[in-house]
Amino acid sequence: MTEPLFDRVALIGIGLIGSSLALNIRANGLARHIAVTTRRRETLEKAEALGLGDSYHLEATEAVADADFVILCVPVGVCGAITSEIAPHLKKGAIVSDVGSVKGAVIDQMRPHLPEGVDFVPAHPLAGTEQSGPESGFLELFRNRWCILTPPEGTDPAAIEKVEAFWRGCGSNVETMTAEHHDLVLAIVSHVPHLIAYNIVGTAADLETVTQSEVVKFSASGFRDFTRIAASDPTMWRDVFLTNRDAVLEMLARFSEDLASLQRAIRWGDGDTLFDLFTRTRAIRRNVIEAGQDTAKPNFGREPGNGEAAPGESTGS
Amino acid sequence: MTEPLFDRVALIGIGLIGSSLALNIRANGLARHIAVTTRRRETLEKAEALGLGDSYHLEATEAVADADFVILCVPVGVCGAITSEIAPHLKKGAIVSDVGSVKGAVIDQMRPHLPEGVDFVPAHPLAGTEQSGPESGFLELFRNRWCILTPPEGTDPAAIEKVEAFWRGCGSNVETMTAEHHDLVLAIVSHVPHLIAYNIVGTAADLETVTQSEVVKFSASGFRDFTRIAASDPTMWRDVFLTNRDAVLEMLARFSEDLASLQRAIRWGDGDTLFDLFTRTRAIRRNVIEAGQDTAKPNFGREPGNGEAAPGESTGS
Repeated sequence: MTEPLFDRVALIGIGLIGSSLALNIRANGLARHIAVTTRRRETLEKAEALGLGDSYHLEATEAVADADFVILCVPVGVCGAITSEIAPHLKKGAIVSDVGSVKGAVIDQMRPHLPEGVDFVPAHPLAGTEQSGPESGFLELFRNRWCILTPPEGTDPAAIEKVEAFWRGCGSNVETMTAEHHDLVLAIVSHVPHLIAYNIVGTAADLETVTQSEVVKFSASGFRDFTRIAASDPTMWRDVFLTNRDAVLEMLARFSEDLASLQRAIRWGDGDTLFDLFTRTRAIRRNVIEAGQDTAKPNFGREPGNGEAAPGESTGS
Repeated sequence: MTEPLFDRVALIGIGLIGSSLALNIRANGLARHIAVTTRRRETLEKAEALGLGDSYHLEATEAVADADFVILCVPVGVCGAITSEIAPHLKKGAIVSDVGSVKGAVIDQMRPHLPEGVDFVPAHPLAGTEQSGPESGFLELFRNRWCILTPPEGTDPAAIEKVEAFWRGCGSNVETMTAEHHDLVLAIVSHVPHLIAYNIVGTAADLETVTQSEVVKFSASGFRDFTRIAASDPTMWRDVFLTNRDAVLEMLARFSEDLASLQRAIRWGDGDTLFDLFTRTRAIRRNVIEAGQDTAKPNFGREPGNGEAAPGESTGS
């Protein structure tokens, strides 16, 4: 094994991303010491029981002391406050990073607090599941997924290189772009899709003509895909929408315009408009599969009947 | 093996559903003879090469002669025309059924053509994948999935019972309801979800600020789930929206209203409204999993790195 990239990494927050990072740092020898910190005693105890770190701290200020790499793995809404708290305790030459799904607002909130002599390399691993908490992390989470770095202009290239090496060490592919462009891209590939998934699940829950139990029972005809996305962490996603407001509203306006035009096509029986769109979108799925971003197996490779036992099955009816 | 339910089943159309039915009829001994018919010579030849039937017919009128069970496995838009064509050739006492995703319109189109002495039991198996064609069928497609029967009032109970036994023989659970209620339920659990998936994929493809290749590359952050649904058969789905117009427009109006209210919450920074919805929707996912309608595995159990090789991986970078 080669020399570790860092002596001491401090992970602030130990949810799905933080715990998956801890497993990677250990398995891939990326640092000599993993300091884990979270404000909730119960979560910290879980992390300790799982053996995720080398030291455990309720105070972030303790965890970052002597750390040469500090990663905020918390909802974007609290990044500013935490940075302000840890700033006086950061070691000279340390690199600070994060994993937030929004970059512009996070940079605005964190940067002003950071002292001279500390490098700031914001990062966003495009990886996750609908689950959260320290017990939901796993080693392969970042494998073959993209991690986007958005270093502000003037960042030390050596620091960027180290963070890039770190993410490659976790199995990721790394791309660099501006925070502004990142936020536009993510609005369309992630934020608006999450919003409309949350929305349709809410709409379905509120109907009077169709019961909620019918919606659940017959969900396999399409709806269940949306319920998975709509089960994502509420705090994280609230913060995403509040902090990437402009890009989300811009993409949402386009989505609604396009939907209104489909609605009109349905109302007036314009089958050609529907057919043309449905053919065009099919080609994009092929591109996603060819780019290695999803499996080509039908239904995402869900095994038929596996974990899908329907009510009544056990009665033999 | 018990006595087959039917002597001769005629499958009109041999796509994903038709071919999966053929495999089930054979494997589970549900009929003595499977007559396969489709208008496209190329598709019929594929079906024959796959050995799906016992006889193959370019003319539906030939296939239904002497059949005691006739199932239309075609897009709902052509059900009426096909029924009018086969009606004079139907055997007395035959049962006619279909597998359409819309029931009211299909009944309106098929029923007037059907002669006295023929029973009509419309059916809708809530099962499918994003793939189509005779080669995409598989035996387990219907296992533990629901099949909804919508027999018009006055249908012979013995015919309903036989169709129910047929679907149970394919591994399905069976439920009976009115066509009108079916169309409302499906509008929310299937039709509108498909429409918004098609729509967001179209919106993403048309952006100027984010390239289509970026959308594809970073799709794993949520968007890729939608591309799967938006890869469903264009003809089938065009017909669904044209024939279940009223229920779809009603559900779509509610969806858009709810989305406008979320948009307002984002614009005005109302985090509580967002958080409340996101918490409520999470509970519905739990219900879907408890009802056995989806796997509890993160990301639908997609294996990390499996079929997800990212560009650059093979270069060792």
